[in-house]
Amino acid sequence: MGYGVVGSGVAQLLAKNYESIVAHSMQSSLRLKYILDLRDFPGDPFGHLVTHDFNAILEDPAVGIVAETMGGLHPAFEFVRACLQAGKSVVTSNKELVACMGCELLQVAKEHNVNFLFEASVGGGIPIIRPLSQCLAANTISEVAGILNGTTNFILTRMIEDAMPFADALRVAQENGYAEKDPTADIEGYDACRKICILAALAFGQHVAPSQVRTQGISALGQEDMAYAESFGCAVKLLGCAKRLPDGRITATVAPALVPHSSLLSGVGDVYNAILVRGDAIGDVIFYGRGAGKLPTASAVVADIIDCGKHVQKRKFIGWEAGRADFVAPAEEDCARFYVRGHSAAKENALQAALLQAFPGAKQLRRAAAPSGEIAFVTPVRRERDVCAAIARLPGLRPDSILRVAEL
Amino acid sequence: MGYGVVGSGVAQLLAKNYESIVAHSMQSSLRLKYILDLRDFPGDPFGHLVTHDFNAILEDPAVGIVAETMGGLHPAFEFVRACLQAGKSVVTSNKELVACMGCELLQVAKEHNVNFLFEASVGGGIPIIRPLSQCLAANTISEVAGILNGTTNFILTRMIEDAMPFADALRVAQENGYAEKDPTADIEGYDACRKICILAALAFGQHVAPSQVRTQGISALGQEDMAYAESFGCAVKLLGCAKRLPDGRITATVAPALVPHSSLLSGVGDVYNAILVRGDAIGDVIFYGRGAGKLPTASAVVADIIDCGKHVQKRKFIGWEAGRADFVAPAEEDCARFYVRGHSAAKENALQAALLQAFPGAKQLRRAAAPSGEIAFVTPVRRERDVCAAIARLPGLRPDSILRVAEL
Repeated sequence: MGYGVVGSGVAQLLAKNYESIVAHSMQSSLRLKYILDLRDFPGDPFGHLVTHDFNAILEDPAVGIVAETMGGLHPAFEFVRACLQAGKSVVTSNKELVACMGCELLQVAKEHNVNFLFEASVGGGIPIIRPLSQCLAANTISEVAGILNGTTNFILTRMIEDAMPFADALRVAQENGYAEKDPTADIEGYDACRKICILAALAFGQHVAPSQVRTQGISALGQEDMAYAESFGCAVKLLGCAKRLPDGRITATVAPALVPHSSLLSGVGDVYNAILVRGDAIGDVIFYGRGAGKLPTASAVVADIIDCGKHVQKRKFIGWEAGRADFVAPAEEDCARFYVRGHSAAKENALQAALLQAFPGAKQLRRAAAPSGEIAFVTPVRRERDVCAAIARLPGLRPDSILRVAEL
Repeated sequence: MGYGVVGSGVAQLLAKNYESIVAHSMQSSLRLKYILDLRDFPGDPFGHLVTHDFNAILEDPAVGIVAETMGGLHPAFEFVRACLQAGKSVVTSNKELVACMGCELLQVAKEHNVNFLFEASVGGGIPIIRPLSQCLAANTISEVAGILNGTTNFILTRMIEDAMPFADALRVAQENGYAEKDPTADIEGYDACRKICILAALAFGQHVAPSQVRTQGISALGQEDMAYAESFGCAVKLLGCAKRLPDGRITATVAPALVPHSSLLSGVGDVYNAILVRGDAIGDVIFYGRGAGKLPTASAVVADIIDCGKHVQKRKFIGWEAGRADFVAPAEEDCARFYVRGHSAAKENALQAALLQAFPGAKQLRRAAAPSGEIAFVTPVRRERDVCAAIARLPGLRPDSILRVAEL
């Protein structure tokens, strides 16, 4: 359902590797029967399979597996629910659908003894959903953090490596087809937000809604921040992060953060994605690859189709509970070191004294050609709430940027 | 079976995360019933479960899943085969067993409708077996390459970062418990060889025996090689590599190689492992984490136990065919750029002229304090066989080191 970039990739990949896909699926009758789209595709090699009628698919008992690659919440949700209720397994690349309605759809799938799989919804083709839910099942997960959006990572890479201002880097991303004409969903972090919801639900077992994730994009970042981060041995990356607090609640955030060069994540450039999972037995594992694109995403959709083929009349154990209201704590309750950049009209000596009193052990940062009155420093490990309160008390300091230093 | 480092980690992890493990396994009766070992463990929290009698386990119908963590080929092979024949699923961390006898044991498992799983046999706790066999099942894999041995990676990291000679770095590794008293299996590449056999079999569908893998260790590497590699923008890493040739055969090798800093693999330090998989749809994906150690490896063993719990009377599709004799081509048939370091008594001008004639476009490398007569260069892309033949014809050049430049 949906013959756009991903959907056409799925058709193409099914055809290209057909024999081994059929062998892996253990279903000799696996073949592409319908393509649902509003448009026609004359001349397309699969154009003859196009139907405009969802009911043709829904009412065909020969259809056992449906791939939803339409995107958006409606009518994707209604279509997917109807397919599951009709006893068809569904696989999807639609992160918005899984982040918002995943818990409900998994429940419908369970009631009808079919599968609802969504490997393609996070990290494109990077295997992450299965590893997180199966390979790491022996672990208690304490944190999931990742570079989950290729567009913003491309923009940040240009800002860091080519010293481009944000607006120029965005334009280059658009020229290369990595950013859409309206780039809001990417650069404001909404796309990464949906992905961290899915990862958090899998890692911690409860639904996390996009509205519960404090989401901050990259459009306010400046070259100054890149320079200061570098002087502190870090790269600025947009991180989606879900973390268990000592009291059992979690925090879930999307925000630019300083990632130390000692972490592999700081070296993840261009449109690549990488996801770190921290477990009590395994320690840190990282999954890296192309987080978007036609064939990488289709690779994950087809892997799910294969898995549905192997699990006819059998259900895979994957899912999470409805979220308790108090499960997600305010992000301000989490502790970290913070990078702060701001301007102050106060005399430098007075400000430095106040700074060291408010944050004993704070490290002041320097950059070439900093204008007078600019100040940047990294705090010791503190609760975010306390950091903000202390900054508000510093004499005349107007903070322009407050970013977490990731402990990765 | 086997209460050593990994086996005791399995018992410990099962106890620590018992509730969630049971929930994931979908088997409410999952519990540790016996520990097979020649020794007794008085005072150990699980000491009362120890038996010295393999038949107690074999003949107990309540035992449905057996974890083999003894290591070595015998009696591990006989015990595992007997368990499978008795209708018990087996999971193992024993890479030698899987590399040498995997094809046969998978066949026995198939005949008795039970599972034989081995996630822990490669990359410790890093999820790689399942992602390779399931998540990437829609891909035609062209190459698998990885840093598969933590001991040698620790030694190389010390040689690179601390400019230590090999012997000193080995001693530090031994002092830290990262290398055994007899380090042969690690430093000569035998451990990595077993792991690339398993990865190659999964990626390409045919058994690859350790004897078919050209295996070269790191003991002959010198500081010179580290310096020249750095001058060429590379780090030296011990890579296990299996690659499909244009004619459909594969090559399988373990050898030190120059890894460009542009690849994430060059930044994998200390005892960490990382495995790159290259597929036609997904492109490059990398899996990174702790490749050894008690709890990381136990994490993978327990994940397999959970999976066996979910697949009672159902088989997971995993396996490969017996290897055709001509499936693995001689490594010399593969093409690459090669790094060559040697000594020559010829006049530098004459050697350079001969070098450029033999390898048009070769790049000569420089390092500080190179003794007179030392020469190092990187060839253009050539078949290895041709590179070696051309070097033999260079006037008076005695090659000390020939390493592949990895295309990662």
